[in-house]
Amino acid sequence: MSDLPSRVTIKEEGPREGFQIEPGPISTTRKIELIDALSGTGLKSIQIASFVNPKRVPGWADADAVVAGVRRRPGVAYSALWLNEKGLQRAMAAPDLELRGSLSTTTSETFMAHNTNRNFEENRRVQRNQLALYQHHGIPVERIGVMTAFGCNFEGDISTQQVLDATQDMLDIAEEAGETISIVSLADTMGWATPKSIKRVVGAVRERWPEPRIALHIHDTRGLGIANAYAGMELGVDLFDSSVGGLGGCPFARLKGAAGNVCTEDLVFLCEEMGIETGVDLDSLIEAAQLAEDIVGHPLPGSLIRGGSLTKARAAILQ
Amino acid sequence: MSDLPSRVTIKEEGPREGFQIEPGPISTTRKIELIDALSGTGLKSIQIASFVNPKRVPGWADADAVVAGVRRRPGVAYSALWLNEKGLQRAMAAPDLELRGSLSTTTSETFMAHNTNRNFEENRRVQRNQLALYQHHGIPVERIGVMTAFGCNFEGDISTQQVLDATQDMLDIAEEAGETISIVSLADTMGWATPKSIKRVVGAVRERWPEPRIALHIHDTRGLGIANAYAGMELGVDLFDSSVGGLGGCPFARLKGAAGNVCTEDLVFLCEEMGIETGVDLDSLIEAAQLAEDIVGHPLPGSLIRGGSLTKARAAILQ
Repeated sequence: MSDLPSRVTIKEEGPREGFQIEPGPISTTRKIELIDALSGTGLKSIQIASFVNPKRVPGWADADAVVAGVRRRPGVAYSALWLNEKGLQRAMAAPDLELRGSLSTTTSETFMAHNTNRNFEENRRVQRNQLALYQHHGIPVERIGVMTAFGCNFEGDISTQQVLDATQDMLDIAEEAGETISIVSLADTMGWATPKSIKRVVGAVRERWPEPRIALHIHDTRGLGIANAYAGMELGVDLFDSSVGGLGGCPFARLKGAAGNVCTEDLVFLCEEMGIETGVDLDSLIEAAQLAEDIVGHPLPGSLIRGGSLTKARAAILQ
Repeated sequence: MSDLPSRVTIKEEGPREGFQIEPGPISTTRKIELIDALSGTGLKSIQIASFVNPKRVPGWADADAVVAGVRRRPGVAYSALWLNEKGLQRAMAAPDLELRGSLSTTTSETFMAHNTNRNFEENRRVQRNQLALYQHHGIPVERIGVMTAFGCNFEGDISTQQVLDATQDMLDIAEEAGETISIVSLADTMGWATPKSIKRVVGAVRERWPEPRIALHIHDTRGLGIANAYAGMELGVDLFDSSVGGLGGCPFARLKGAAGNVCTEDLVFLCEEMGIETGVDLDSLIEAAQLAEDIVGHPLPGSLIRGGSLTKARAAILQ
């Protein structure tokens, strides 16, 4: 009936997404406090900063200080985001970051024009140059990312063929340069996906390229985030980006206050209650989400912050 | 791969659930305003009041006035809740209500003791008397309801067998009295269900009793509400209770502010975007949810109130 995986791996993106969009200011110390709390929950992959232009993203003006200040817990991979060579140079200069290159595109050329002022052809050139830069610095390139894979505020519904074309484009660039892609990450950047379109697109990508692992980057803009993650798991998807408390918001929704990335603790709850291992201690993670609410100073969209885990509900019965 | 239904029927319970739990006071006029807005969205079944003890539920002290004041829209069934003969008498005296009897039990005798001060044997007696009363008044009895079908804060995890036993119990009472049950409603009263347990329990009930239609009453306490509804639909479930905006809250969660019933507009969005008809105009429904927020004076948990529909997003592209 379904191919639910036995284990799911979560890449925590809450700090990077959240501190980029929150009006703040949030002190470097408190950012570090949240990241240190997250690394104590069992999460093994945490994106902890964004090396971007501080004039455009003032919330990450202190990225270097945050990365330097985070306590490194053995077995946890700490990563960061960059968008150009200058950002990459800062990431390379930072201590103990896991550096991984990724090739990035979207299904929607209109969105690409709005977002990066490129067309598909220009993006191919940029991605080729990025790849050459990664190879020059000895940084592994294992992932491609396809944005707006399920719909786009600028182009509307997105066909399966558009996703396959965008994926093929990036795989070609990797292949030309002798790189093997092991992860294809499909992003519902603007919250258009449904369980049905998740299955349609994941199924088509899997059928065409059986080798790479598929990752899902899901936004919860319209409340289907957890259902979409479940639909992915039903097709065996076992790699998800998510955000503690649902930190991050949505820069693309038409109305203020819409949710952003799917919430990590709700995702962990979904998995653990269905017998899918995540390696994460849910109650510690809920505490980290409560800490995140305290740090940003307003309620976050995650459900377990208020609903609580069943671990605690079960323990209360046994007492 | 799945048995998604082509059409889903929604029973709107937001007014009854919401005005019962909201601290208020909310005027009779505003309650009527919300119900009249809901009946204009295409919803065909709306529970509009609760005939319960006003000392215990002050929010419904004006149930008779609300029911009398609601504008009757042709084709819409207006129903109400009652818990005893006195409540039933009030419902029978009210104009233009659809009166339907239901037999009610729980899987958890401990919860039943807390909730109604009965054990299973006493509940059987009460339900038999209720059924006789319905028959006496010529009120059709077509539904049984099984609470805590997926887990219980007092007893913990609930086995499939407990659900089958509770269902059998009510079916026996109906059969003894010559009634045929056409709807078995399974309630996740305290938000313990996962897509996996929904499939396990719905599958087992369907296998044992292929005839009755299965309804799901889902709570979103821990963020899995929409995923659980989707899992039900994958097994062909096409009948759901839900609550506009997620009105209602959760009286059983351990922490304040946890969500209650699954949100109607998010559920309609899930259906319509997957090509499942609901007969509901989503944008009108979102407006009703925004009206509900205005009436209760605080944000409601529904996602589309903030995220907006894709109908509007698509229209914006075409312009």
